[in-house]
Amino acid sequence: MNPIKKTAVLGAGSWGTALAKVLVENGQEVCLWGNHPEQAAEINEQHTNKKYLPDVQLPKKLKSTNDLSDALSQADTVLFVIPTKAMREVAQKVTAILEKPVLIVHASKGLEQGTHKRISEILAEEIPEEKRKAIVALSGPSHAEEVAVQDLTSITAASENKMAAEDVQALFMNDYFRIYTNEDIIGVELGAALKNIIAVGAGALVGLGYGDNAKAALMTRGLAEISRLGAAFGADPLTFLGLSGVGDLIVTCTSVHSRNWRAGKMLGEGKKLDDILENMGMVVEGIATTKAAYELADLKNVEMPITTAIYDVIYKHEDVREVIMKLMNRVGKNEND
Amino acid sequence: MNPIKKTAVLGAGSWGTALAKVLVENGQEVCLWGNHPEQAAEINEQHTNKKYLPDVQLPKKLKSTNDLSDALSQADTVLFVIPTKAMREVAQKVTAILEKPVLIVHASKGLEQGTHKRISEILAEEIPEEKRKAIVALSGPSHAEEVAVQDLTSITAASENKMAAEDVQALFMNDYFRIYTNEDIIGVELGAALKNIIAVGAGALVGLGYGDNAKAALMTRGLAEISRLGAAFGADPLTFLGLSGVGDLIVTCTSVHSRNWRAGKMLGEGKKLDDILENMGMVVEGIATTKAAYELADLKNVEMPITTAIYDVIYKHEDVREVIMKLMNRVGKNEND
Repeated sequence: MNPIKKTAVLGAGSWGTALAKVLVENGQEVCLWGNHPEQAAEINEQHTNKKYLPDVQLPKKLKSTNDLSDALSQADTVLFVIPTKAMREVAQKVTAILEKPVLIVHASKGLEQGTHKRISEILAEEIPEEKRKAIVALSGPSHAEEVAVQDLTSITAASENKMAAEDVQALFMNDYFRIYTNEDIIGVELGAALKNIIAVGAGALVGLGYGDNAKAALMTRGLAEISRLGAAFGADPLTFLGLSGVGDLIVTCTSVHSRNWRAGKMLGEGKKLDDILENMGMVVEGIATTKAAYELADLKNVEMPITTAIYDVIYKHEDVREVIMKLMNRVGKNEND
Repeated sequence: MNPIKKTAVLGAGSWGTALAKVLVENGQEVCLWGNHPEQAAEINEQHTNKKYLPDVQLPKKLKSTNDLSDALSQADTVLFVIPTKAMREVAQKVTAILEKPVLIVHASKGLEQGTHKRISEILAEEIPEEKRKAIVALSGPSHAEEVAVQDLTSITAASENKMAAEDVQALFMNDYFRIYTNEDIIGVELGAALKNIIAVGAGALVGLGYGDNAKAALMTRGLAEISRLGAAFGADPLTFLGLSGVGDLIVTCTSVHSRNWRAGKMLGEGKKLDDILENMGMVVEGIATTKAAYELADLKNVEMPITTAIYDVIYKHEDVREVIMKLMNRVGKNEND
């Protein structure tokens, strides 16, 4: 058993709530922070978070607040599980409150608009070194809905600081939640962010009526283009073969739980992006990540045909059927070229 | 347009029939050989092969025979699409009939029992050099049911002889059937054979009630163990990231069309192997491949925990729930160790 420490989990969406539940079940003290006082009250009094995890009973020991100072008070670890676009602002608020250095962990998947920064880069910029111990990314094939009902799940804790990754491994590990460590945080974060683009593409294929063969081919080529961009940033190619790479790609592209896949499916069916996003009611990271990745590929001169196709559909409003048909019928050539 | 040549397609199961249909649609002359005269008559007269592709109308120009000499007469190319256990015997019969060298292609996925040989090794042993031009393996994510209705499919043509792979690419390529070449036939054949074991495992997980997170983790670790065994045989690690590696793994582990996945699911549900195989009515290559791969891993001293677990269930009759639970709860460690 680990010594009991306090973790502030920032973000009371489905994944933040599921991770908070794991920690409480591991005997840890947790305070879950979200923006909405009614949601905090529901978690504290009803022990549910019905908007995000409709059928799940949360542990009574899980505390929630909408006051960031309360959440951070006495915390040893701060876990960020918020949308990418809110990361910098929340990190600034956290920095203003922190009085001692804490272990920083995040479980978000995206790239910042404009700067193209990875989440750990944003956190490193906004939280000065004297207020943090290390930065660890948690990522892997992990639908929150399954973790919340204790379905077996294996994910990666990645950090340049191996001991910090092992600390996070020890904090979360239990019978149904298995943590592997990895030192390649660049590869882990890029895989996590970029697979959402491929999931949008896989959904679009299905929406257009394509079958499993086509989807598997798209995922395969998608993994190759993720690896190419990763290599341009110095990521270890092996990382894309791991849980946060191909593992997360598989679960995101083949499961009905995936928001990115569902958004893509609606795109393929010819629905308008604004209507889709309104219909989802949750952040679809793959939409913004497509823009950031498209720009990064251009900057680094890396060929990313699937990302480009999804960009053309979303941001240039090109016809989804024509774009996907052109993508899938690229001239046959040597596979490893 | 390619010059019209004749291909003898050996094996009138679902995949042989679907590949024969592609060739006829490409304007090629094809004779489809199977063991059963009634089946050949059905294909020639009704233009259907209801046992294997129930709802598919076959082209009128597709000829079928149960006479191997008729099928091979004037053939430029011989395509083997038969179960692994029949490969050596049929190759011997073909050799006895052939009068001039032909291009040898196969689209089968397995390893020979006892010898652990790949399909191209069996064919090279049984068909002397003066009767063959080159050996090419066709493999990738390709459910026959989808190819037969012209759903978009991308696969690999692999050969040490690059020009032969390109000839096969030209023969099969059309708007819905996309061929990529690859010179690593070892990696392509091993990926094709071994992914069936992982599919049995993925099916067993589902049969036991595990969710998508667990399945994705199993597939990820499965890809790693396939790559390890491949590396021990000199395969290019990149091949396992391609269509015949991760692509075929994805389609086989996530699609209801897969016989190996379905057999695994029934194992997970506690059904007896004999009953499962009887129920399937078609060859489940993953069952025999598990034994060959288990022995190979032992010979080459390669760690293959998933293959070992499936072997323990099938051949040592260990309890499927206990074996899978032990497999999935291996001690967390560094991902790339």
